Amino acid sequence: AAGTDASIEDRLAALEARVAAAEARAQKAEATVEQLTASQQTTTSKTRSLGDSSAPSAPSVGPAGDAPSMEQRVAKLEGNADKKLGLTLNGYARAGLLFDDELTGTEGGPYITPAGSVGGAVGRLGNEDDNYAEIVLEHRAEYENGSTSLYKIMLADGVESSNDWTGGDSSLNVRQIFAEFGSLPDFGGPLENASIWAGKRFDRDNFDIHWLDSDVVFLAGTGAGLYDIQVADDWTSNVSIYGRDYGYIGDEGFGDEVESYIFTLNNRIGNWQWMLNGLSAKNNDDRELDPGMLPPDPRADLAEHGAHTMVAYHGESFFGLRDGTYKAAVLYGQGLGAEVKSLGSDGNLTEDAESVRLAVYGTTYLTPSWRFAPSLLAEHSKDRYVSGDSYKWLTLNARVANELSENFEMQYEVSWQTMDLDPQGYNSFNSVDGDYTKFTIAPTFKPQVGGFWVRPEIRLFATYADWDSDLNNYASGNNDVKSLGTNGYTGGEWSFGTQMEMWF
Amino acid sequence: AAGTDASIEDRLAALEARVAAAEARAQKAEATVEQLTASQQTTTSKTRSLGDSSAPSAPSVGPAGDAPSMEQRVAKLEGNADKKLGLTLNGYARAGLLFDDELTGTEGGPYITPAGSVGGAVGRLGNEDDNYAEIVLEHRAEYENGSTSLYKIMLADGVESSNDWTGGDSSLNVRQIFAEFGSLPDFGGPLENASIWAGKRFDRDNFDIHWLDSDVVFLAGTGAGLYDIQVADDWTSNVSIYGRDYGYIGDEGFGDEVESYIFTLNNRIGNWQWMLNGLSAKNNDDRELDPGMLPPDPRADLAEHGAHTMVAYHGESFFGLRDGTYKAAVLYGQGLGAEVKSLGSDGNLTEDAESVRLAVYGTTYLTPSWRFAPSLLAEHSKDRYVSGDSYKWLTLNARVANELSENFEMQYEVSWQTMDLDPQGYNSFNSVDGDYTKFTIAPTFKPQVGGFWVRPEIRLFATYADWDSDLNNYASGNNDVKSLGTNGYTGGEWSFGTQMEMWF
Amino acid sequence: AAGTDASIEDRLAALEARVAAAEARAQKAEATVEQLTASQQTTTSKTRSLGDSSAPSAPSVGPAGDAPSMEQRVAKLEGNADKKLGLTLNGYARAGLLFDDELTGTEGGPYITPAGSVGGAVGRLGNEDDNYAEIVLEHRAEYENGSTSLYKIMLADGVESSNDWTGGDSSLNVRQIFAEFGSLPDFGGPLENASIWAGKRFDRDNFDIHWLDSDVVFLAGTGAGLYDIQVADDWTSNVSIYGRDYGYIGDEGFGDEVESYIFTLNNRIGNWQWMLNGLSAKNNDDRELDPGMLPPDPRADLAEHGAHTMVAYHGESFFGLRDGTYKAAVLYGQGLGAEVKSLGSDGNLTEDAESVRLAVYGTTYLTPSWRFAPSLLAEHSKDRYVSGDSYKWLTLNARVANELSENFEMQYEVSWQTMDLDPQGYNSFNSVDGDYTKFTIAPTFKPQVGGFWVRPEIRLFATYADWDSDLNNYASGNNDVKSLGTNGYTGGEWSFGTQMEMWF
Repeated sequence: AAGTDASIEDRLAALEARVAAAEARAQKAEATVEQLTASQQTTTSKTRSLGDSSAPSAPSVGPAGDAPSMEQRVAKLEGNADKKLGLTLNGYARAGLLFDDELTGTEGGPYITPAGSVGGAVGRLGNEDDNYAEIVLEHRAEYENGSTSLYKIMLADGVESSNDWTGGDSSLNVRQIFAEFGSLPDFGGPLENASIWAGKRFDRDNFDIHWLDSDVVFLAGTGAGLYDIQVADDWTSNVSIYGRDYGYIGDEGFGDEVESYIFTLNNRIGNWQWMLNGLSAKNNDDRELDPGMLPPDPRADLAEHGAHTMVAYHGESFFGLRDGTYKAAVLYGQGLGAEVKSLGSDGNLTEDAESVRLAVYGTTYLTPSWRFAPSLLAEHSKDRYVSGDSYKWLTLNARVANELSENFEMQYEVSWQTMDLDPQGYNSFNSVDGDYTKFTIAPTFKPQVGGFWVRPEIRLFATYADWDSDLNNYASGNNDVKSLGTNGYTGGEWSFGTQMEMWF
Repeated sequence: AAGTDASIEDRLAALEARVAAAEARAQKAEATVEQLTASQQTTTSKTRSLGDSSAPSAPSVGPAGDAPSMEQRVAKLEGNADKKLGLTLNGYARAGLLFDDELTGTEGGPYITPAGSVGGAVGRLGNEDDNYAEIVLEHRAEYENGSTSLYKIMLADGVESSNDWTGGDSSLNVRQIFAEFGSLPDFGGPLENASIWAGKRFDRDNFDIHWLDSDVVFLAGTGAGLYDIQVADDWTSNVSIYGRDYGYIGDEGFGDEVESYIFTLNNRIGNWQWMLNGLSAKNNDDRELDPGMLPPDPRADLAEHGAHTMVAYHGESFFGLRDGTYKAAVLYGQGLGAEVKSLGSDGNLTEDAESVRLAVYGTTYLTPSWRFAPSLLAEHSKDRYVSGDSYKWLTLNARVANELSENFEMQYEVSWQTMDLDPQGYNSFNSVDGDYTKFTIAPTFKPQVGGFWVRPEIRLFATYADWDSDLNNYASGNNDVKSLGTNGYTGGEWSFGTQMEMWF
Repeated sequence: AAGTDASIEDRLAALEARVAAAEARAQKAEATVEQLTASQQTTTSKTRSLGDSSAPSAPSVGPAGDAPSMEQRVAKLEGNADKKLGLTLNGYARAGLLFDDELTGTEGGPYITPAGSVGGAVGRLGNEDDNYAEIVLEHRAEYENGSTSLYKIMLADGVESSNDWTGGDSSLNVRQIFAEFGSLPDFGGPLENASIWAGKRFDRDNFDIHWLDSDVVFLAGTGAGLYDIQVADDWTSNVSIYGRDYGYIGDEGFGDEVESYIFTLNNRIGNWQWMLNGLSAKNNDDRELDPGMLPPDPRADLAEHGAHTMVAYHGESFFGLRDGTYKAAVLYGQGLGAEVKSLGSDGNLTEDAESVRLAVYGTTYLTPSWRFAPSLLAEHSKDRYVSGDSYKWLTLNARVANELSENFEMQYEVSWQTMDLDPQGYNSFNSVDGDYTKFTIAPTFKPQVGGFWVRPEIRLFATYADWDSDLNNYASGNNDVKSLGTNGYTGGEWSFGTQMEMWF
């Protein structure tokens, strides 16, 4: 027993030591955990507006001196939670790899064809090589008098490099920065539901054909305006001025600036949108172009004015045939307005330039698991950069997706573009006439499938593109421009890659 | 006994097993703690603290085992919402258009006059052409021992272009990035309320005359310091060192750097602020200036040392006359301290340079709807960049606002500046002597009017500016500098435009 | 015996109580650790999830048409608070001053020695002169089907300037931008716990030796992959492809790009990590190097392929000797894989290049207040950039800290590096052979001391560094490279300064 006791004694002593050690370790772990917890604690993002007593939107919950009721207190918490007030961050991003069948970098991009130089997009699936991101910060507030304010700032960056450090290539910049006020008590009558804005922005009523990476109309710049003036029962109008820069007469940065102004009247009448724009860029004809862009004499004067109009229909079915959506638009522009999509962004247009463009797309579910989104984009532009030039092109594109499970779908995109371009020497481009075809298959993962605009997506893809060899001649005289025919990208090309696309 | 021993044996074995298990668990917890510490330790966004029951500042909701009452649960949610800890985002922005009566870009800016080249601001309303934004991210934490930490990072960008994509013009950069700790248990006696900081920052006690877009004193750079040392009952002091860069001797980026250091003692004694600064920039005289800046020989040596002091009064009324505020400051600097506003930012000063500056402004409501904010800024600087040079200027400015409704006010700004500048050939500038006058009227929308610093605002404006023609000669010898007289901006000028201004 | 038994009984009872208590504490610590672990990866910005009605995870609080009860409403608020979803912001930053005993800027940096040009880091404490920041934005969502998504974007900037405005020096860029999906219902079998990602990122399983500012392995770029494929019970694997850019053949930006691809298989088998990489960069040998980098003829061909492997052990004690951690890794690479740390980042390696590297570090508490973290990094590289070249170096480093109070610790770092470099004229570098020694003492303030990875810190420091004078010759033929010997930084150098370091 003594032996047993002794052994027990030993084991007890050992146990006591181990327990003491375990306690010490537990104590230390607890302390660290506590410390971790302490420092992890309290971060708020948004919530700033939840907690900031100086936030103009914090409604008082009762008469001074009265304790708010539980109902009031919960309502306030819920109100805070439900409001779109405070800070929000949103974003868009795409990033991926694009390589050819020899596992080396290849060309690509929705504007890779000769027609792309004048806006002829050919479809983006399996055809993008850049990493592009937008970070959007919004701050919303609501005031005691009922007014609301929105402040938005957008950072954007696009690079082609796959490297992680792109300090030398970075184009990170502020693309939007504006304020907008709504529900102003002063605004009555036709302005009752109107809002007023100023700063740099993308116009609220721009819209795009996502699959082509092309806006139908893209109005952006620095300016001010009024949205949603009630003209009649089913008619609202926006009036705005947007400024843009075309460069300098004389020394870069210190000479006279040439600025362009766009006056816009944008009407919504039921499902119709009718946009009218006037453009003015004084002294634009005195601006000197990069000599490399100059065509042989004689050339026309650069435009200093322009006009532009768009009529669009925003359909609530698939062309009246079935459930879905469609949009159709006709655009016409003259002078500075002849860049009919990116309003006011092209200062090299002649005073006689004229363009007409047609844009149509629709979306529908053919079956519960097959989505179909066809689109058409076509333009004829003449006297655009040189008297007598002519740019005709037409793109047909269809994005088809087959939802195979909750997380997976096969996506297909087929594009066909025909073009007849006669640039008359502008930018050292040659006349070309021919067709381009692209087909892409993209196995696609999604957290949850379920629609045309559901993101994020992670894609693998294989793309085959071919075109008439005449198209390779377009930019052969200009080493500074990528187009078909450059770097051995001459036809019958396979591309492969992977890409993520995200917005939230 | 055998039974007892057996039982003891059993209990020992069971204990040993439990201790082993506890040890294993402790080890695992320790490992995880270590891993957590390694990868991220002290962080969380506050958001998290709303849900984190272990947050140290969250009041416990009841004795263990008791279900918290509704009262307790709501109190906890409210408490979480009120916290100032965690992440916050703040911002400042202005963006707009500035054009002349021919609807073309025009000159402008608060420092457009010849005196502006040495800090003579003339008033910003209806006179700004840039899009400028600051995005400020703050992370605050509180620790179990009562310590607090603040981490701040500020991104800023300023461009003149009105275009939406400014990848080529962007100046997006990190202007502040620092950490500051407070309430350290180790700090006692005069340091009891002190905080310690290091990194890159704007000094906390800088202040400005907003209407002139001019700080009264602006100390910024990379360094470290202590704030709020209690020297006496009504006396606190800050001591800091700030470093700045002046460029290189020899090859840009690879030669010897010339760095400047500012030692600052900043005292608050009641309403008085007394700042003392010493500056040192070894080898600054060996630095080579851009030849274009060099005046004719003989010229003085570049300063390698400097001294600076400011005495300011922060008034709690409108000059003792009525409700409101006022601030007044006298600044004197010598050598590197002769740039009296932006401390240490000018490495081209001579060793004999001397400047004295006076800054005064006030704010008051003249009636319930009329606000009035006059200011004065004046300086005499000599031997500044060249022996024998002299810069004398004085600005009077008044911002007046008439609050006409909850959402609308008329703002007026009148500025008058007189100057007598003799640069002795520095930067190819010519001697000028004359006056400048500017008047602006700006119909202004606000979600809620109500004070001098209430933002956001959306303004339209019309500005008339005129000046003595002699002032047009100042920069006529230097094509790289914008001033009066460049690009046909020669006097009697109307400007128009729109602008938003925001901070939150 | 009864007495003995009684005593034993008492001690057993006491032990049992203590073990029970220890178990309870361990349980609590485990629970908190679990919670911390969970929340660590998924911070929520409430704001967004609170207010965003389209958030996929927002549970409905009751049947449609029923008004939710107070209980339900509070539960929902609490539920929102508990979510790990939404937006989080995290960051890393360091900023400070570094000057010499004459109060002027001095050289520094963890890669300042000749060996630094091939990865030989020497320890960072009191040796850094840059302001570097990372801002990381994460958006997490959870879907009804259980899938999760993570979107991450990282902005980073590093500048040497101490000035507040660094618009001209800024290198702000997007270093990461990717999407990752987990818990996909489609994934079963070995993929059950796997996640899929695409975009630009730092590989998840990179790890570093913090005190050296050197990763052990750093894989980053644009690509896609799968994480956590279950190969066997204790064996998971990641497979990925990463792309990187090496530059152009011909005109910058418009010639043929040379791209590099890294195929990686990264295995975790218990505490072991085994990484296998294949690299390919077609046409890399046709790329033209900056002539300044070219060594005399004859030189080897640039590599177009490479292989790389790493075997690492992640220890859960201090080398089995005491509580703590350690990590050890051996890396071998050939051809493009001969840059063994930053995989695929060096396109100038020859086809015969070979490197072998050893990395070891550990952390332990020597006493409750003394921390000790020794490390070793060594490499032999040959035929690296030129046939017959050889780079041998070995670094020993130890970071020691003495926690003196809740807020203060003394930190010490000693580094010794020996090198024998024979670059054979590459980059105009000369052969050198010698040793470098650095010692730093850094009084350090922290809100709360307590571990190797606890930040933020504010440090003052004094550093003494000395080296064999032969090392000064390394870069004496190349004015564009900073190394020992440039700008009078020739040995026996004192540096002083201040720095903050932060992560959260």
